[in-house]
Amino acid sequence: MRAAVLYKPRDIRFEEREKPSIKSPDEVLVEIRNVGICHSDVHYYVHGRIGDFVVKEPLVLGHECSGVVVEKGEAVKHLNVGDRVIIEPAAPCRTCFYCKIGRYNICENLRFMGTPPTDGAFSEYVVWPSDFVYRMPEEMSFEEGALIEPFSVALYSVRRSGLKPGNRVAILGAGTIGLMTLLAAREAGATEIYITDIIDQKLKLAEELGAKAAINAKKEDPVKTITYVTDGRGADVVFDAVGVEATFNQALKIARIGGRVVVIGLGFKEMTTSPVIDIPTKELDVFGILRYANVFPDAIRIASSKKPPLTKLITHRLDFPELVKGMEIVARGEEPAVKVMIKVR
Amino acid sequence: MRAAVLYKPRDIRFEEREKPSIKSPDEVLVEIRNVGICHSDVHYYVHGRIGDFVVKEPLVLGHECSGVVVEKGEAVKHLNVGDRVIIEPAAPCRTCFYCKIGRYNICENLRFMGTPPTDGAFSEYVVWPSDFVYRMPEEMSFEEGALIEPFSVALYSVRRSGLKPGNRVAILGAGTIGLMTLLAAREAGATEIYITDIIDQKLKLAEELGAKAAINAKKEDPVKTITYVTDGRGADVVFDAVGVEATFNQALKIARIGGRVVVIGLGFKEMTTSPVIDIPTKELDVFGILRYANVFPDAIRIASSKKPPLTKLITHRLDFPELVKGMEIVARGEEPAVKVMIKVR
Amino acid sequence: MRAAVLYKPRDIRFEEREKPSIKSPDEVLVEIRNVGICHSDVHYYVHGRIGDFVVKEPLVLGHECSGVVVEKGEAVKHLNVGDRVIIEPAAPCRTCFYCKIGRYNICENLRFMGTPPTDGAFSEYVVWPSDFVYRMPEEMSFEEGALIEPFSVALYSVRRSGLKPGNRVAILGAGTIGLMTLLAAREAGATEIYITDIIDQKLKLAEELGAKAAINAKKEDPVKTITYVTDGRGADVVFDAVGVEATFNQALKIARIGGRVVVIGLGFKEMTTSPVIDIPTKELDVFGILRYANVFPDAIRIASSKKPPLTKLITHRLDFPELVKGMEIVARGEEPAVKVMIKVR
Amino acid sequence: MRAAVLYKPRDIRFEEREKPSIKSPDEVLVEIRNVGICHSDVHYYVHGRIGDFVVKEPLVLGHECSGVVVEKGEAVKHLNVGDRVIIEPAAPCRTCFYCKIGRYNICENLRFMGTPPTDGAFSEYVVWPSDFVYRMPEEMSFEEGALIEPFSVALYSVRRSGLKPGNRVAILGAGTIGLMTLLAAREAGATEIYITDIIDQKLKLAEELGAKAAINAKKEDPVKTITYVTDGRGADVVFDAVGVEATFNQALKIARIGGRVVVIGLGFKEMTTSPVIDIPTKELDVFGILRYANVFPDAIRIASSKKPPLTKLITHRLDFPELVKGMEIVARGEEPAVKVMIKVR
Repeated sequence: MRAAVLYKPRDIRFEEREKPSIKSPDEVLVEIRNVGICHSDVHYYVHGRIGDFVVKEPLVLGHECSGVVVEKGEAVKHLNVGDRVIIEPAAPCRTCFYCKIGRYNICENLRFMGTPPTDGAFSEYVVWPSDFVYRMPEEMSFEEGALIEPFSVALYSVRRSGLKPGNRVAILGAGTIGLMTLLAAREAGATEIYITDIIDQKLKLAEELGAKAAINAKKEDPVKTITYVTDGRGADVVFDAVGVEATFNQALKIARIGGRVVVIGLGFKEMTTSPVIDIPTKELDVFGILRYANVFPDAIRIASSKKPPLTKLITHRLDFPELVKGMEIVARGEEPAVKVMIKVR
Repeated sequence: MRAAVLYKPRDIRFEEREKPSIKSPDEVLVEIRNVGICHSDVHYYVHGRIGDFVVKEPLVLGHECSGVVVEKGEAVKHLNVGDRVIIEPAAPCRTCFYCKIGRYNICENLRFMGTPPTDGAFSEYVVWPSDFVYRMPEEMSFEEGALIEPFSVALYSVRRSGLKPGNRVAILGAGTIGLMTLLAAREAGATEIYITDIIDQKLKLAEELGAKAAINAKKEDPVKTITYVTDGRGADVVFDAVGVEATFNQALKIARIGGRVVVIGLGFKEMTTSPVIDIPTKELDVFGILRYANVFPDAIRIASSKKPPLTKLITHRLDFPELVKGMEIVARGEEPAVKVMIKVR
Repeated sequence: MRAAVLYKPRDIRFEEREKPSIKSPDEVLVEIRNVGICHSDVHYYVHGRIGDFVVKEPLVLGHECSGVVVEKGEAVKHLNVGDRVIIEPAAPCRTCFYCKIGRYNICENLRFMGTPPTDGAFSEYVVWPSDFVYRMPEEMSFEEGALIEPFSVALYSVRRSGLKPGNRVAILGAGTIGLMTLLAAREAGATEIYITDIIDQKLKLAEELGAKAAINAKKEDPVKTITYVTDGRGADVVFDAVGVEATFNQALKIARIGGRVVVIGLGFKEMTTSPVIDIPTKELDVFGILRYANVFPDAIRIASSKKPPLTKLITHRLDFPELVKGMEIVARGEEPAVKVMIKVR
Repeated sequence: MRAAVLYKPRDIRFEEREKPSIKSPDEVLVEIRNVGICHSDVHYYVHGRIGDFVVKEPLVLGHECSGVVVEKGEAVKHLNVGDRVIIEPAAPCRTCFYCKIGRYNICENLRFMGTPPTDGAFSEYVVWPSDFVYRMPEEMSFEEGALIEPFSVALYSVRRSGLKPGNRVAILGAGTIGLMTLLAAREAGATEIYITDIIDQKLKLAEELGAKAAINAKKEDPVKTITYVTDGRGADVVFDAVGVEATFNQALKIARIGGRVVVIGLGFKEMTTSPVIDIPTKELDVFGILRYANVFPDAIRIASSKKPPLTKLITHRLDFPELVKGMEIVARGEEPAVKVMIKVR
């Protein structure tokens, strides 16, 4: 089979590998169809590492994927060969403290697709534990299927935020995660959603997706604007979908007294200089988000039944051989990309 | 001013009363425009009592209302004369244990419109504490304004249920509260909503409002059907919007293991014979609902920005002098009524 | 090895069986030391079944146990041969919906010691997954170790109840679970704890363990008494540790408005006749409890560091050959037993 | 009556003022007995301001107080003249958004004793709304009564933290709030409690009060030590009872993955430089604390029935005329003070 293998920064090579085979009776072999490029993929592509996770051995990236079951272990009952499926790219250990309490996203021994040393989905085939593989509804496309992963980040964030129907929400950043959070927050009953970014095309897309106002943070102060439009109170819930000093500090100011700040973005440097004093004086709740747990089935059901326009986030569609081009589009940022979608097959 | 006064069961008399006046600087005088008839109004009308609340003195019923501010106390800042408003019909004591913890709906000294001894809204004017009076958005009609009260019951129930976006939901009863719960659950991100009733017209309306399936409990077994369509698992959350033995018992069976049952309806007799053993063996959560707290502003915002079709629930529109006719329509149930809306002025 | 095998009601036979051996690298072989008799053991002993769980094949009962590791699989790192240990008698599937969300106690494929078809601990040796086997603190006795299981039921119930330090609590039933709940509620900061039973010796023990008042429900009305001593308000949290019609109905009455009822006991008949209407009119929360999840390590830590007097619950100590005598003591109830502790070795 | 009035930094003058009188039927007049000195009192005393709260008019400080009812309004039923009482020093508006949701501590119009422009308790008499005045249990001393206020901060923090019985806890800072949090966390079932400070006498006191280990942060690294003693996992809950850059940053490191950080201390500068990235990568919850709500009755009940040794925190006892001396003891920090208790009468 063909796989796209990262050897070192900006060095992805297509090579023939042996097709993987099922080793445990509860695994399935999936022929990959669509894979979205995530910012973390691009970060590995450019830097060869994310924090302590270093690409030491050649690595296949990619974790936002859909495909077709082509082989299954004998213990697998809920899937059949030929089923169109979505893979949840997390394979937790199931025995550590975190797995047992249901937070397998912070499993101490987590294998996550495309994170060293676990190969990902920019490859024609993948073997995966079947209970993290979900059948796609008939009317769902493979592209939509591949978008369930980033939508799950957003859905998990919205659930963890305690957002209540009727709440007023601010989202900082209108990239994939910001826009997915917009869609998820709408599903959860947010009324007014204010979103910020520094690229007008993304803001325009945010408005099409239902933002009440999309604010260019280079042109106006998001804190002032959002405070004003919420009658001076501030937002009930603020999602920081960028995760840098500027957005985190805005989040603390935009949240209402007693409000909630959800930190999804991971763009922070080692140290951040912030008005931490707002946390006690405004009696804020601040929640960190790392990946997701227990949301894929519901994310699929929402995508299927309520039809948030997930595919509108796709700004670029490329075939598998163009993967490097896709990586560079995101890395260079010359043309505003939200989601670059790769058709593996 | 003219008021409709209940003297004894089935004896409502229109009489001239002195227009009430503001006694405290934080009150407003509201000219009433629309008032919906609630089942509790009809219960007082027919029986002269609800449980321990007995109509001993002549009483004005009605608590689902909208109107216009015609006078305001000197301390009132957020409202002006001429403002179109919605009244939250609860006036809690603000000092008891329950008020202080934010559950003013179970205030030990609650005054509630149309509940002895507090006069309600079937009257041309009402004086009310201004912080329980909310300005209506411009585009909202007085009819919609009067529907915010029952929608608030539903929104409060949905919030208290912990319903998460993506959940599968069952609602037992397709009267006003059941249908409002359907609309509120949709806003909160419920995907599949199954609803039951015994009147086909109401079920048809439920389907128009977004139910995935509407089940006539006289014709098929809701437990079997809903278990089947949820792949044997059962519903994540079940709302009992009737509150009788049959529906409560169904609710315990329809809820999935580890699921939640929300009891909104108050139709129970003194004793109910039920499979209570399901509560521990299925490890269920059962939540009771009594009125609502802290939801009016958000209910108004949802109605305004997301436009759930609240007014579709109005099956009858009558003028003030036809109030008794409206009461009888609900009481006799000869023609299926959901919401009977009275235009006071 | 020697095992006590239930063949049919009241027919337990001691027989020699082959010592079990480790089949998976993450298992351990434990030499059993102490096992407490649980009411569920006695129910199987007397009736040969509990609800749908029927003893069709010969079964070893017992699930409250401590012992010593005598062999371990190669993947086991946190335990060594010779370690004194406590076994959590649940072995969930780790892949179903409930396992993934952290509620493995309601796992769809749960194996539970001493529940058909899984053999339990009235046996000299048991093989068990090592992540459900915990090292005992040095100063803890094997008897205390065997009491961690019932204490875990109580600790889980207290956690799930949302009991807050300072709350006033009622516990219905002063058997093992009721008394363990008393100890756990004290640890969680309950101030006044009121407990009921119909056997004076148990009530006396409850007072020794810290109950503010112990009420004989045959001699006075628990509802009246507890309402009175809580200044008419009622208890913040009520634990029904019996689970029969009478106690459940008392629980609904004893809970304060807006309070919580936790149903732990499983003594209910198929149908229960109750004032269910109190659930909405008092806006109660009712929580069912089935076994426990994610509490053993903390239960052990509490037992070790804060020293609740768990062993005071032991009313009878018997050697392994006297197991049937122990079963009969509980079954006949002639002499008031709380915990009957068997020394297997 | 005599009152201690702050005119400007370090200028407190004792002067005769007219005894205040009841203006509303639900108020009581309290003769003050004991008042503890809080760090916020000392901050006003030294700096004349705390953030935006500036002492522009002469101000009476003091808010940790007990006394005796000497007069009551006609609507007051739960108190009588002669009752020994504790005052909750918050008088919220009861009508704003925050009051209605039960978070009156962040009331938009809060009057708080000893915070401009509301006079406090270093005065012989105070008039206060009676529903924020609580009768003291008979066996409680006036000193204990005056300690309920700082204990309430701790109890509220512990409740808001979601600390579960069995959790392992770290507390940064062994001043009054840190030590009170230690006592409250013990009541809530924390097992191992690790506490840090830089003054050995305070650490010694912490150990006497039940800390498992008391760490001098000048001599060893709290992060390393607490990580080590929790087997590398970290604390389930960390309370920052100091609130400066160093402690906040330690808190983020000491909390286990998925753990909770509670920020109580208010010592932060405008900007803090911190590893905010830990919030998402460790998926932390961070909760701010500002004062307390809905805990006084429970704090009193705990103090009365479970007898945490609150008075051990009193390091200095002074008479009213020595108030300035007491302020200076805290301000200069020459002799390690925890709680300086003033006997007003």
